[in-house]
Formats: sequence, C-alpha cells, structure tokens
Amino acid sequence: MAKQDKMSKGADNRKRNSKRRYYTYRKTSRKTSSLPQIEKDKVMVSFIGGMNEIGKNMTLYEYKNDMFAVDCGLAFPSSELLGVDLVIPDFTYLEENSDKLRGIIITHGHEDHIGGLAYLLKRVNIPVYATKLTIGLIKGKLEEHGLLGSVKLVEIKPGDNITLGHFNIELIHVNHSIPDAVGLAIRCPAGIIIQTGDFKIDTTPVDGEMIDLPRFSEYGRKGVLALLSDSTNAERPGTTMSESSVGESFELLFRKAKKKRIIVATFASNIHRVQQIIDVASARGRKVAVVGRSLENLVKVGSELGYLNIPEGILVPIEAIRSYTDEQILIITTGSQGEPMSALTKMAMNEHRMVRLTPNDYVIISATPIPGNEKMVGNVVNALMKQGVEVIYENMYDVHVSGHACQQDLKLMIGIVKPKFFIPVHGEQKHLVSHAQLALSMNIPKENIFIGDIGNRIELSEDGIKKLDDIPSGEIYVDGYGVGDVGNVVLNDRKVLSQDGIIIVVASIDSASGYVVGGPDIVSRGFVFVKENEELMQKAKDIAYDVIEKNYHSKYHDWNAVRNKMKDELSKYLFEQTKRRPMILPIFMEV
Amino acid sequence: MAKQDKMSKGADNRKRNSKRRYYTYRKTSRKTSSLPQIEKDKVMVSFIGGMNEIGKNMTLYEYKNDMFAVDCGLAFPSSELLGVDLVIPDFTYLEENSDKLRGIIITHGHEDHIGGLAYLLKRVNIPVYATKLTIGLIKGKLEEHGLLGSVKLVEIKPGDNITLGHFNIELIHVNHSIPDAVGLAIRCPAGIIIQTGDFKIDTTPVDGEMIDLPRFSEYGRKGVLALLSDSTNAERPGTTMSESSVGESFELLFRKAKKKRIIVATFASNIHRVQQIIDVASARGRKVAVVGRSLENLVKVGSELGYLNIPEGILVPIEAIRSYTDEQILIITTGSQGEPMSALTKMAMNEHRMVRLTPNDYVIISATPIPGNEKMVGNVVNALMKQGVEVIYENMYDVHVSGHACQQDLKLMIGIVKPKFFIPVHGEQKHLVSHAQLALSMNIPKENIFIGDIGNRIELSEDGIKKLDDIPSGEIYVDGYGVGDVGNVVLNDRKVLSQDGIIIVVASIDSASGYVVGGPDIVSRGFVFVKENEELMQKAKDIAYDVIEKNYHSKYHDWNAVRNKMKDELSKYLFEQTKRRPMILPIFMEV
Repeated sequence: MAKQDKMSKGADNRKRNSKRRYYTYRKTSRKTSSLPQIEKDKVMVSFIGGMNEIGKNMTLYEYKNDMFAVDCGLAFPSSELLGVDLVIPDFTYLEENSDKLRGIIITHGHEDHIGGLAYLLKRVNIPVYATKLTIGLIKGKLEEHGLLGSVKLVEIKPGDNITLGHFNIELIHVNHSIPDAVGLAIRCPAGIIIQTGDFKIDTTPVDGEMIDLPRFSEYGRKGVLALLSDSTNAERPGTTMSESSVGESFELLFRKAKKKRIIVATFASNIHRVQQIIDVASARGRKVAVVGRSLENLVKVGSELGYLNIPEGILVPIEAIRSYTDEQILIITTGSQGEPMSALTKMAMNEHRMVRLTPNDYVIISATPIPGNEKMVGNVVNALMKQGVEVIYENMYDVHVSGHACQQDLKLMIGIVKPKFFIPVHGEQKHLVSHAQLALSMNIPKENIFIGDIGNRIELSEDGIKKLDDIPSGEIYVDGYGVGDVGNVVLNDRKVLSQDGIIIVVASIDSASGYVVGGPDIVSRGFVFVKENEELMQKAKDIAYDVIEKNYHSKYHDWNAVRNKMKDELSKYLFEQTKRRPMILPIFMEV
Repeated sequence: MAKQDKMSKGADNRKRNSKRRYYTYRKTSRKTSSLPQIEKDKVMVSFIGGMNEIGKNMTLYEYKNDMFAVDCGLAFPSSELLGVDLVIPDFTYLEENSDKLRGIIITHGHEDHIGGLAYLLKRVNIPVYATKLTIGLIKGKLEEHGLLGSVKLVEIKPGDNITLGHFNIELIHVNHSIPDAVGLAIRCPAGIIIQTGDFKIDTTPVDGEMIDLPRFSEYGRKGVLALLSDSTNAERPGTTMSESSVGESFELLFRKAKKKRIIVATFASNIHRVQQIIDVASARGRKVAVVGRSLENLVKVGSELGYLNIPEGILVPIEAIRSYTDEQILIITTGSQGEPMSALTKMAMNEHRMVRLTPNDYVIISATPIPGNEKMVGNVVNALMKQGVEVIYENMYDVHVSGHACQQDLKLMIGIVKPKFFIPVHGEQKHLVSHAQLALSMNIPKENIFIGDIGNRIELSEDGIKKLDDIPSGEIYVDGYGVGDVGNVVLNDRKVLSQDGIIIVVASIDSASGYVVGGPDIVSRGFVFVKENEELMQKAKDIAYDVIEKNYHSKYHDWNAVRNKMKDELSKYLFEQTKRRPMILPIFMEV
C-alpha cells in the first residue's frame, strides 16, 4: 500500500534516459536464458477499465513511445444507471496516445474482457492478439459492429511471444471457466511483470490441460518484479473445486431425475460445462436441445473451432422436442442469473414460445448468483416451483464451481511467482484488501503491496511503485447507439422521472400582449392516476394560471422567472398534497 | 400439498351448521384441561399480506361471524416498483367484513408485522392486542399517523388468553431478534391451530427467557390440528446460533480493535444486540454514542420500557464524541444493509454531519445482507476500506446470528407440536417447499401438507384442507400520502420514463383553421444531452411539423389520429437513430 509523492514523469524519465542505451527484445523461445541482460528502467501501468472492480476490463502498459493494452471488456450497469445498456472503459488516453499504441492482448473470451473491444477499435485501429477461441468470439463481436475485415486479428497460443515495441509478452496457459485463457509474462525494461488474468488452478480440467504452473515457477526463479493477480475469490478460503466435479454431480442428478425431462441452466460461455452436460446426457441416452441466443452461438463457435465435441445425432432443434418423451430430452438453457428476458425466466413465467413446463420437469441451475442477482435468481426458482417443477439450485449439490482461484490457490501463485511487488487486481476494494492480506501473510512487505484504484497510473521499477496523476478512466455509458451521450444530467432526469413522474404545464402566450391565449393545460405521466385525482389536477391548473396572471401586471414579461415561480408553487402544492416530487416542466409557446 | 376442488363456502357451512350447537370459549387459565369439549367444525384461514413471501405480513382467521387478524406488516418494494415507498396488504376483504372483525393480534414489533397497522386502523377501528414492547413500538407508528388515542391498544403477556368471538388465543413466548415476541395457540371450533410467528430456539437468550417449548409440547400432547410455522430459514441446515454468541464475538473484536474507535452497525430493532454492544463497550471503558433516527428511537423506547439496561453515564450524544479519544468511543449506527440514506453509508461516503472516518476507525457490520441488499452492503464496505478503515463484515467473525429457526429447530417444532396438518408460512415459495420437505421427512403425509399462496383462503377441519376462492390480497402500494393510487399504468409510465426519458412535442393550433400558429416545439428530459444532439432534435422537429402539415390537407382535423401518427413517426425515427424508445407525448393546444 505504498503511497509516495507524485512527481513529474517527464523529468524523471529524462534523468534515467541519460544513463542508459536503447535496446529491443528478440523474439525468444521458451529458453528464457537467452533473454538479454538489460539495464533496469521503469514502466507505467494504468487501470483504465472497471466500474466497481479495479484493474478489470482494461489495463495499459507504457514505456517511452510504446504502449499496449490488456483486455477491453464491458461492465453491466448497476441499477441506478437507468436505461444504460453497457459500461465500457474511457478510451480518451488511448486515443490521445494512439501513435504509441502497438496493440492489445486479450486474455480470454468473456464479456468483461472482450465486450468493449469493438468500441475501442472504432476509435483506434490496432492489432488484436488472442488465442484461437478468443479470436473466434471476438470475430462475432466485430461482425455485429461491422468491423470484421478491417481489423488485424493475430491468433497466438500459450508459449508464444509477442513483441510490442519495448515489450515482449509471453502467453501462459491458465484454467478458467472458458477454454483458451492465458496469463501474461511481460518482459520490459523494468523487469518481468506477471499478470495472471482470470484464473483458477484445476488439476483435473475437462480439456486435460492444467494451468502451466511450471512456467509461472520458472519466471519466479528468474525473478519477477511485480505480480498482478486475480482477486475475485480472495475472500473465499480453501481451494477452488475442479470443473470435473460438476460432471460427477450431473451424473448423480441425472440419475435422480429418473424419467423427468431435465433442463440445465448455465452461463453461455462455459464450454466445459456444456461439454459435460452433453457427455452425461449422451451417456444416458438423452437428446440435447439448446435454448437461448448466446448459448446457441457458443455451441456453434465451440464446435466449429473444435472446443466442443458433440456426438453425432445428439443435438436436436428445440422445435423437435415434442417428438420425444420427457425422459429422452435434456434442454440446456440461458438464464442462470435470473435475467428477465432469458429463456429460463420465460419458461418459469410460462411465456416461453417452445418450452412449456410441467411437474415432470427437473431443473438444475448450474451457476451461483453473481452478487446483485440473488433476488432475480430467487424469483425464478420460486416461479419454477409454483409450477410444481423440482429445482436444484444454489449449493444444494455441487452443480457449479467458480472459475477463479480461492485463497489457497492465490497464495500458491504468489508463492511460486515470488514477486517483489504485489498488485492485487480484478476485484472490488474488499477483494483487493483480502488479497493483500494473503500476500502480507506470505511476508511480502506492506510497502511492496499496492492497492490501486480505477484511473490510477503507476510507475513501476526496482525502486518501488509511484502513483502518478490519474488518467481518464472508468465508466462510459452505452445506451442504444449512444456512447457517452448519457451523462449525469440525463441520468438525474431519469431518476426523478422514475420516482414520481412528470407534470407538464403548457400555455400559449400572445407574444405582443403577454396574455395567455391557450391553456394552461396540465398533462402528467407516472405521477398519479389522473382519473382518481381530478380535483388535485384542477387545483394545480389553477395555481399555474394564477402564476401567469400575476405576471400580466408586471411590466417585463420575464418568462424564465414565471417558469421558475410556477415550478416552485406547483412543487410546493403537490408535495403538500401527495408527499411526491414529480419533475415539473412548464412550456410556454408564443403565438 | 393438498389440492381439492373448490366448493361454495356458503353451501358447505349451511350443511355443517345444521348439525351443531353454538358455543363460546371461556377465558381459560394455563390449565387447559378446563377447555370445553366441542363438536368439531371448520374455520377459514387466509393469507392476506405479503409480496414475495407467503403467509407473511397478515393472516386472517374466520369462523361464522367472527374474524381476527394476525399481524399487519409492510413489505419494502422491489426495485421495479419505481417510486413506491411501502407495500401494505390489501384490506378490501377486512373492510367488507368489518362488522365481523373482532380484533388484531400482533406477534412482535418488526416492520413486517406492524408497519401496515396504521393504514388498517384508518379504515377499520378494531382493538389491537400485543405485548408490552410491541405496543410501545406500535404507539410510535400511530403517533406518526395521528391515530394515538383513538385506537384501543390491549397490552397482554405470554400465557394470557384473548377471546375474540369463537376464537380463544393463548400467547406463547418465543425467541426472535426482538424481545417480547410470541407465537399463538388458537383454539377454535376446528381444533387447535398453532401459528409460531417469527421464531428461533435460543437456549441462552440475552434476556434469559428461552422459548416456551414446554407449552408448545403441551398443545402437541393435547392434539394440534394445524401448525403454521416460520419458513424463513428452512433452506439452512443445522440450528440457529444463540444471540449470546454474538456478545462473545464482540468481546474478542473489541479487544482486537485496541486503541481504535469502534463503530458497530446493526438492525435498529435488535435490542438484545444493542444491549450486548453496550455491555461490552461499558466493560472496556468506552462511552457509547448512537447514530441514526430509528436506533435513537429504539434506545429511547427500549430503556423507557425496561428492555434496555444502560449503565449510568455510558451514553453520550454524538456531538460530544470530539471530547473523547478514539479508544474511549464506540458508535452504534444504522446502515447495516447499506441503505443509501443511512448513517453508515453517509460516513462511508464522507458525507456524515458528525462522524469523520480515519484509518483509526474499526467498523463492525453486525448483520447479514438481506437478499437483494448484497450489492449495497458490498459498496459500503468498499467505500469504508477506501478510507483506510478496517472492516469486519459478512461471516468474517460471528458478529451476526439469525432470528429465525434453521432446519433442526424447525423439525424440533414440528416434532413437539405433532400437527395433523402442516402449513409452512413466512417465506418465498422455495422456503415453503424446503420446509414442506422437512415435514415430509418427519412422516407427515404429503396430503396433509399445504403450500399456499398469497390471497389463498382455505377451509381447515379435521377432514382436511380445502382451497376456497381467493380473496383480495397482497400488494397495495404506498407512495407518499397516496395509498393505492399508484397502479400499473403509473408504474409502466415510470418504467418507460426511467429507461429512455420523454420527448414532448407542443404545438398551438388555430381552432378555426387547424393551422399551426405556434411550434411545434420539442422538449426532452432524460433522453439525450440536447446540446450534443441538436441535429437529431431539429430533425425530430421537422418530422413533427410534417405530420401536422399533412393533416391540413385532410378535411377532418382528427387530432387524435395526428397524435398517434406523430408518436409512430418520431418513435421510429428516434429508434433508428439512437436505438432508444423514449416516451413521446404530443400536446396540441387550441388557441
């Protein structure tokens, strides 16, 4: 939690530069002994993305005239961001420095790592580096935005090295809840920086490839300057269970379901989960139907790219399920977070076009509610149960495991990477603090641990971590096609409108005389049910009329003053009568 | 889960009545052997209150011309009920039968059991029966609504009997997170019905009085027709920890806090919790300041009525804390649920009038987030930590225990009451289903278990449970002074307004010619930031003008048709341009 005085980066760089030569990295093989011996300098790291979570969505590395970004994700808006669809990082700093930006590396294909990419690429066209599946998912995004073909996508694999100016980055295979996830070993003039990306340690992963701990260890032996590690589960003790354990639960539960139809809801991106569901269903002689746009897309991309292995004849279109008995069918569906428009929610509310539930259905929600979604998931469970459906949810069985490392695994990572500096990232403040405490317990000195904040730009070198001035960062709101055009004024208006509605007072004024020639009329929306409140609305109209009339006697027709007076008087009256504060909007038209 | 055909209650009653005599209960002492032998008949039970939770907020018992209600609570609105302050039960059925309504019994003083009472008493003036503390808290409510003095409040204590027409009700002491809570043994022509109210089994309660299990057992031996039991924690295995265990955690943590100032956030109604905080603070030589209106009220009422024992000189006003060092002070505050306007949230956001936080503060959140509040609580924890404060939260230590019985305790209650019929209440569908499974596991036959729904009215007798027609129930929205005047139309408007705002088109029309003499003008709120979208707004204005102009050429000036046309055209244009759907409100004034 080092906090040092801010100092000018420019001045500092000039001083350093005089002492050292330029160099470039060679593209190196895994024999890292061939790394050039370099004089140590400092690099800058910035946390550009994130809403509540720090060091998420997007990180930026800088050294002199070279910059590269890691990930470009979106966040889903919190409920007070009324009408906002997505939140993406602020790209101002990247745009201002677009001549230095050498590329972007994407660690894996989740929305919070790729969802903002199309918006960035519309502003700065830089090469994108990612593994095969991640590229596949990015292509889908770019296609939606009409960018496919105009962007350079570079497919890489774990063990590969990317040279971006003064930076040389090796990708290291990690386990996560989506295949093809990688962590990064960033070799740069300051030393070696490890950024884990989202990871877990899975000794029995579904695709057979355990996280490449040996490679992390090699870097640890070599000497790592800083570790930026995933803090999502830093509050959870123990180790994270293997994805395979979910498969065992499925075997048990599919047996318990007996002759019922089985419906499994899960995250649309969890290919290994889907693979396990298909495997167990297939072994028990059930056909599989997939429901929900994002899942259908995953199954398509996953099987095209060879990440999903679907036995011949197992998949049936959802329209075909009527041709089978309940015991012959398993449905995989979206909606594990209780999302209102998702397939599972529609089924629960008896509104799904193709799937009608009966007490002969057996629903497994193979997910844990993301914080904030508990209530929505609960509502869906209740609605399912009211239809007599048997529901397996939450921790009734091990039908879900996390994709993120828990405390023991996080400590293991710190223990093998042995960083000089530790920077917990990917988490809310409380997660970073928990993660920092783990590092402290492993004897990393307090002054070598840095808890950042969104927008922080730090200078990292052997000598320490220094906080520089913050850069533009964080939350740009996407609402429909609008990117950044919904700000605090618009959100505040929506907030007021959502609470007590709006009262509109319209009057036509003769421009010469200042007399009212039409109205005032009062129209309300979202305030009260007008038919039952005619007296109230009539009285409001009288007040509006009085305010205008008093203005006749004034020599100057200051319509702005009349408007404000009207707002005050009506607001006061309506609050007294109803204890509500609708937005009051007087509109005067000169005729 | 008995489901039988509906049949007319009237016809059914007439048939039964012909066979039997009327009788009345005597006021009985605890020697229930003196209960009169009665011929068995049937009574009606209705679940009037509740939003998601069934059999909560209000239950109604009926027999012939006698009715009484149990509890009259409020629910807090879910986030989609925009602008709604409270949700109270629908009193229609009670009002329609006010001549039969003999009174209302309140089981304890929590908002979800007393919060709707003032609204009910404004409509039907009936006597209210409750224990001392509950009466004290109800008085506060009635005072707010100007009802104190005009309502008959009857203070009763556990063991007392209340005769309400054909019903005779004994109050039985139970443990809960507020003192003076009771369950009910309802003796009536159908037999004995036990309604537990909210309860837990606390063998070492802070006030020394364990739940009166012997009394429940006596009824069990005598033969109980039906048990209505609290399902809140029916999903949780094991037993609920004693409130005393929290005191032990406080002792440990207050030591760990060392010389820091301690701030404890807890529920404003948990007198035992507050007592324990004060006791441990006092033992460690700290003064106690209380912050937050509801807590201040609790401390006042609690000490006046003798439920809080505050050592002389321990309490200091919050203004006085500056006169003490950090280690001499403990602050008890509201805000344990992260409520935006609460004292703790204000402290966390550095907006509290009296309390400024420093890294020398030690905050204990002595509560678990209520489902739906997880995110808000997390945000407050993050904000506190960003100020460098050490925070104890969630299950880091045993700083909170539930007030509701877990599975083992619930089974114990079923085991000693031995009801013929089991009706899980106080819970969402999933809780009731879990609770029903516990009863099933104890060999209560499936057909003797009834899972109801809000609005259900059932007929209960030795012969079984029969579902009658539903009665008006559930959600009446209170918004400001308005009770029930915010319905679906208003809420839908608020929803639309909250998502994409409103576009108002105003035009003055010459009534004779139909020509536009003023406008059209366009005003928007909550849509886009107008200054950056002048072109869009100008184009919208042009479209509005075109629609009106086309109407000139039509012989009939059907302004309604023009309005609809304008809505369609503008809606289409704005969606194409922005992918948003603001409310569009054309207002034409004839001049």
